[in-house]
Amino acid sequence: MKKVLFPLFAVLGFAVAVPAQAQFAKPEDAIRYRQSAYVLMGNHMGRINNELKADKPDVAAIQRSAAIVDFASQLPGEGYIPGSDKGGTPPTRAKPEVFTDPKVREVGKAMRAEVVKLVEVSKRGDVAAIRAQFAATGKSCKACHDDYRKD
Amino acid sequence: MKKVLFPLFAVLGFAVAVPAQAQFAKPEDAIRYRQSAYVLMGNHMGRINNELKADKPDVAAIQRSAAIVDFASQLPGEGYIPGSDKGGTPPTRAKPEVFTDPKVREVGKAMRAEVVKLVEVSKRGDVAAIRAQFAATGKSCKACHDDYRKD
Repeated sequence: MKKVLFPLFAVLGFAVAVPAQAQFAKPEDAIRYRQSAYVLMGNHMGRINNELKADKPDVAAIQRSAAIVDFASQLPGEGYIPGSDKGGTPPTRAKPEVFTDPKVREVGKAMRAEVVKLVEVSKRGDVAAIRAQFAATGKSCKACHDDYRKD
Repeated sequence: MKKVLFPLFAVLGFAVAVPAQAQFAKPEDAIRYRQSAYVLMGNHMGRINNELKADKPDVAAIQRSAAIVDFASQLPGEGYIPGSDKGGTPPTRAKPEVFTDPKVREVGKAMRAEVVKLVEVSKRGDVAAIRAQFAATGKSCKACHDDYRKD
């Protein structure tokens, strides 16, 4: 099985090379770790979506959620350690391809790039621009779900 | 049932008043959200602990983990919405007192204060000082676990 690591982007200004397997006592822990990051990302993408549907979107709330998506989206890559293709509570939905297809790194990088743009655009406060970049970001999430996540 | 919200500290420089219930489609989602934040916190507290046991602690790795603990520890409070005292996958371990005892806010604030100190001390890079502040932080986590979490 191939070890897959998304690039770990800088957190508060520094990046660290992390030997991922050492960070989890067992594969179940790695599954739960990456799922946790996705839960936070999904929740805050949902909040941004709700704001964008509102009559008067709360830009400060969108900015906060974008920051949380940005933060959480740097984390899941580490969780794809060998042996973490099955199991978990709830069970992992990762397809086997996550662990074998090198293209998954590109998909991860593309998602991160869109999230970083979402943070930038959110800061400027133009709701139409946020809406466009939110759609692009959602598309980059979906690209991974479509190819690498079970239904 | 009393709504409990830990103070939401500033995320990247701004704080937003969030009506928590609106952010979760159902109580299960709120449970999973707070659990996810705790999973990230617990994992990175564990990583710091491992580094502090190593012959040569990797200070950059400790700083990164402290930043992640800092970030994640600002999130769980929102997840304690009415109806989220039972259920979840895995099931919530929150004791009923979390939802009724106003003291839980103080325990949450104390934890946050220790985490913020941990970030500061980590930045200075003095391993002995980090060790002391890590112990204080762990104690502040345990204070909540002892009183508000089922075994």
